[in-house]
Amino acid sequence: MSDSTAATDTLLRTGNRRDFLRVSAFTAVAASTLSACAKPAADVASTALAVPVKPLTLADHIAAANVMDAMHEKGIKAFPAKTEGKGNQLMQPRLDNGVKVYELTASEVQWEVEPGRRVTAWAYNGQVPGPQIRVREGDRVRLVLKNELPESTAIHFHGLELPFDQDGVPFITQPPIKPGATYTYEFVVPNSGSHMYHSHLNAAKQVGLGLLGAFIVEPKQPRAIEKSDIDYVMVLNDGSHGYTLNGKGFPATEPIVAKLGQKVRVRFMNEGMMIHPMHLHGMHMTVIDKDGWPQPAPWKCDTLNIAPGERWDVIINCTNPGTWAFHCHILPHAETEHGMFGMVTALIVQKPNA
Amino acid sequence: MSDSTAATDTLLRTGNRRDFLRVSAFTAVAASTLSACAKPAADVASTALAVPVKPLTLADHIAAANVMDAMHEKGIKAFPAKTEGKGNQLMQPRLDNGVKVYELTASEVQWEVEPGRRVTAWAYNGQVPGPQIRVREGDRVRLVLKNELPESTAIHFHGLELPFDQDGVPFITQPPIKPGATYTYEFVVPNSGSHMYHSHLNAAKQVGLGLLGAFIVEPKQPRAIEKSDIDYVMVLNDGSHGYTLNGKGFPATEPIVAKLGQKVRVRFMNEGMMIHPMHLHGMHMTVIDKDGWPQPAPWKCDTLNIAPGERWDVIINCTNPGTWAFHCHILPHAETEHGMFGMVTALIVQKPNA
Amino acid sequence: MSDSTAATDTLLRTGNRRDFLRVSAFTAVAASTLSACAKPAADVASTALAVPVKPLTLADHIAAANVMDAMHEKGIKAFPAKTEGKGNQLMQPRLDNGVKVYELTASEVQWEVEPGRRVTAWAYNGQVPGPQIRVREGDRVRLVLKNELPESTAIHFHGLELPFDQDGVPFITQPPIKPGATYTYEFVVPNSGSHMYHSHLNAAKQVGLGLLGAFIVEPKQPRAIEKSDIDYVMVLNDGSHGYTLNGKGFPATEPIVAKLGQKVRVRFMNEGMMIHPMHLHGMHMTVIDKDGWPQPAPWKCDTLNIAPGERWDVIINCTNPGTWAFHCHILPHAETEHGMFGMVTALIVQKPNA
Repeated sequence: MSDSTAATDTLLRTGNRRDFLRVSAFTAVAASTLSACAKPAADVASTALAVPVKPLTLADHIAAANVMDAMHEKGIKAFPAKTEGKGNQLMQPRLDNGVKVYELTASEVQWEVEPGRRVTAWAYNGQVPGPQIRVREGDRVRLVLKNELPESTAIHFHGLELPFDQDGVPFITQPPIKPGATYTYEFVVPNSGSHMYHSHLNAAKQVGLGLLGAFIVEPKQPRAIEKSDIDYVMVLNDGSHGYTLNGKGFPATEPIVAKLGQKVRVRFMNEGMMIHPMHLHGMHMTVIDKDGWPQPAPWKCDTLNIAPGERWDVIINCTNPGTWAFHCHILPHAETEHGMFGMVTALIVQKPNA
Repeated sequence: MSDSTAATDTLLRTGNRRDFLRVSAFTAVAASTLSACAKPAADVASTALAVPVKPLTLADHIAAANVMDAMHEKGIKAFPAKTEGKGNQLMQPRLDNGVKVYELTASEVQWEVEPGRRVTAWAYNGQVPGPQIRVREGDRVRLVLKNELPESTAIHFHGLELPFDQDGVPFITQPPIKPGATYTYEFVVPNSGSHMYHSHLNAAKQVGLGLLGAFIVEPKQPRAIEKSDIDYVMVLNDGSHGYTLNGKGFPATEPIVAKLGQKVRVRFMNEGMMIHPMHLHGMHMTVIDKDGWPQPAPWKCDTLNIAPGERWDVIINCTNPGTWAFHCHILPHAETEHGMFGMVTALIVQKPNA
Repeated sequence: MSDSTAATDTLLRTGNRRDFLRVSAFTAVAASTLSACAKPAADVASTALAVPVKPLTLADHIAAANVMDAMHEKGIKAFPAKTEGKGNQLMQPRLDNGVKVYELTASEVQWEVEPGRRVTAWAYNGQVPGPQIRVREGDRVRLVLKNELPESTAIHFHGLELPFDQDGVPFITQPPIKPGATYTYEFVVPNSGSHMYHSHLNAAKQVGLGLLGAFIVEPKQPRAIEKSDIDYVMVLNDGSHGYTLNGKGFPATEPIVAKLGQKVRVRFMNEGMMIHPMHLHGMHMTVIDKDGWPQPAPWKCDTLNIAPGERWDVIINCTNPGTWAFHCHILPHAETEHGMFGMVTALIVQKPNA
C-alpha cells in the first residue's frame, strides 16, 4: 500500500508533464467506456485524443492506477470520518405521571453528510435521522411536535397500529400542523417491533430532506432468538442528501463494533425511494422480523433487499474476526471511480485480545 | 381545517400583490431545494430572487403553507372522485355447453385516469384493467379475442400452467392476431390462484397502454385461511398512464370499504415496470399466497414489496376503525407538492353503527 | 405465420410508395403514443403529419402490423443465435498436492453480446461471465489472478465466509492488484451454495464491464430437494453491455433444454444494478435456497424478484412439454417495438420421442 501511495505522490509531485498527459489521455479513454448512463467526458477525451500519443505502456497503466488507487485508499483510511452532527441518537423521554414525553422540534438545519459536504436538511431536533425513540409495548407515549419549518407538517407512526386520530395523515386524521404551531400525539404503544416516524405531508420532499426517525418498540416478552449483545438501527436513505446510512455517507458512516462471539441485531429501515440490497461480507445474517412481525421461521442470507417503507430485523453471529464491508450491492450506490462513498459501512468483529 | 381553507381563500381572493410575490418567492426557493432528480425552477427562482425581498416572516410561511395545504386538502376532499369508465369489472361469461365463454375486444379508447386527465388507452372491452375473469379450478374456459387495434396482439395467461398452444406467445405458440382478426383460446383451468392475462406482443407498449386484466381462479377446496368477506383485486401500473391502481390515479382510486371485524383479501398484481411497496396504515397484512401458490406459513407485514409480474395475496383483519391510507411507499409515486396523487387509496373500516 | 410473412415480404418487395408512406405515417403516430419516458419521434411525426393523409384503413393497419411482426418473428426464428464467445464455462482446475488451482487472467476483450453487437468487456479468461468455478465444501482452492487490465483490481468471493485476508477488498483486506501484477488467493471452502466472485475495486465499472463469475459450492451432504438432472447457472446483468443473461442478449441467449419429467435447478445470480423479476411460462418454480442458504421451507412462484447481489436457487419440475418463454418481467428489459431482446431465454421441455 505504501508503494502505491508513494508512486502516486511521486507522480503528482514531480509533475512530469509528458507522463501526466499520457495518463490523462488514458483516463479520458477509460472514462468514456463507462456505463451508458454516464455522460462520456467527450470534450476532455477529444482534446486529449487530438494530441497524437504513443500507445500506453504498462508503466502508464500503473501510473494511472496509482492515481486512482490513491483516491480509493484515501477514502478508506478516512473511515470513520468525523463530521458535525449525529443522527439517530437515543432520546431519553421526560416522565409525566407515567407518560413518556418526547419533545421534538422540526426545523431547517445545515447537515454535514460527509466531510465538507453540507446540505439543507429538515430535521427533528437537529438530527438526521431524528432522535431514536425506544419504548416498550404498552407504554403510554406523548410526542409533542413544534413546527419551525416554512411548511405545514404532521407525523405518521409507520407500523404502529394506533387509534385513527393518532395516525398523522393531514385532512384525514388531523389538521396539518402549520408553521409555528405545536401539536401533541398521545397513545398507548400497541405493537412491538422496528417502526418509524416520519412526515406524512408533502412527504416526498419532507422525508427526503430528513423528517424521519426510528421508533423502536421492545416487546414485553422477548423471544430467545431476538436477544442480542448489540442492537443497531440502520436507516437507509437516498433523497436529496444522496445515499446515506443514518444520515451520513461513507467515509462518515458509523461502523458497528462487536466482539468475537457476540450477537448483533441490525434493524434495517428504508426511508428512501429505491431498493437497497444490503450485503454483509464474511458472515451471514439471520432474518427474524419483517416490519416488526416475526417471520414464521428464521432464514439466512448475506444480501437482504430492503424496499422503501420496509423494516427487516436480522441477527448476525459474529464468528469471523475482521473489518467486514457492509454495503448496498447496487454498486453505483457504494462506489465511483474515486472510491467508495454513500451506502458503505463496516461490521468490525474484534478478537478477544485485539 | 376550515381555518386553513379560509386563510387560503382569503389570500387568493384578496389578491394582495405584495404578499403574493413574497409567497411566490418563497415557493420558488422551496421548490429549488427539491430532490436532485427534479429540475429546479431556476428561471422562476432567479427572477423572484432578483427582486430584493425582506426576510420571510412566520406570517409569510403560514400564508405559503395555506396555499400548499389547500391543494392537498382539495385532493383529499375529492376522494373518491368520479371519472368516466371503471376497470376490472367482474365479467359474466356466456355459457356454451358448460364452457364459460368470454368475449373480449381490444381497441383504442380514451381513458380518464383522474378527473379531467384523459389518455390514450388500449383496452379490453373498453376497460383498464380489462374485465376481471373469475373462474373455478377445472372450469373449461373459452376466450375469444377480437383485435380492433392498429397492431397485432396476443394474450398470455400469466400464471396459468396451460398446454403450450394456449400460452399466447406469438411465433412460438401461435401466430400473432392481426388487426381485424379474431382468435380463440380454450382450455381447462389447471391451477388456482391470482393470475393475470395480458398482451405478449410488443408488450412493453401494449401492456403499458392497458392490455391487461386479472384472471382469478378459485380453488375447488379453499383453505380456511383464505376465506374472506371481501375479495379485492388491486392491479398496480406505472406505464404511460402514470401511477395507477386499477387504472385510476388518486383521487379517482377506489376505496375498499369493510365493516369492523370483517376479513378483506387483497390480491396485489403488478403490471408495471417498477416495484411498488404497498403500505397499509393502522393494521397489518397477513401474506398467504405468492403468484397463486400458498406460502409455507402465513407471515405479517405492513409494507409489501410487489415486483413486476408478481402477485401477492394478503388477508387483512379489519380490527381498527377508520379511513386508513393505503399507498405505494415510494413517496414520489404517491405525493407531490400539490398533494397526494397516483398510487394512493384507502381501506375504510366502518364501525357497526357508522 | 407464413401468411403474415408473405404479406410483409410482398409489402417490402413491391415497394408500393403510397402504401409505404401511409404505413410510415401510421408508425410515426403509433410511436408518439409510446411511454412518456421515450422521446416521441417528433420530427418524423410532424413531417409525416404535414402531408395530408387519408384516414388509415384496416389494410393500412395490417400492412404496418406485418412490418412490425416480421421484425418480431425474425428475432424469434434466430433464437438461439450464434455469437462469438461463451461465458460461464465450467473450468477444470489444475490439481497441486490436493489443492484445486484456478488460474484467471483479467483483460480487456471485445465481446459479442448479440449477433454483430460487440462491446468492450473486461473479462476473466476472455469470458463474460468468467469461468464457472464449481468446487465442494471443504475443498482447498487456490485462485491465481493475473491482472492485464489498465486498472488495479481485486476479487471478492461474494457469499463465501472466508478468513478476513481472503475477502478481496483493497486497502482493507489486501493491497490492490496493480496492472501487470499477479495475486494468489487460497482458502478452504467454508460454506456450500450458489456464490459469486467479482471485482471489488472500482466495481461499479469493473463488474459492469464483466469482471464477475459464478462460484458454486456443492455440499458434502446434498438434501433430497436439491437433487436435479440439470444444474443451470443464470447470471443476470444490466451494465454497459445492456440487459444480459450469462453475458448474452436475446436471441443469443442460451435455452435450457430438458426432457419431460426431469428436474432443473436454476441458480439465479444478479450482478447488475437493477432488480429483475424472472418469469417462467408454463410451470412454476420451487424456491429452495437464498444466497446459498436453505429456505426454512420450499415455496412456489412463477415470477421471482432477484435484487443485485442476491442468489436464489429454484427447482423446476418439467411436467409441461413446450418451448417456454423465460424472461425478466420488467417488459422494457425484454421487448421493444422491434421484438424481444435482452433478458429473454426459453426452457425447452422435450417429449420422450421429440
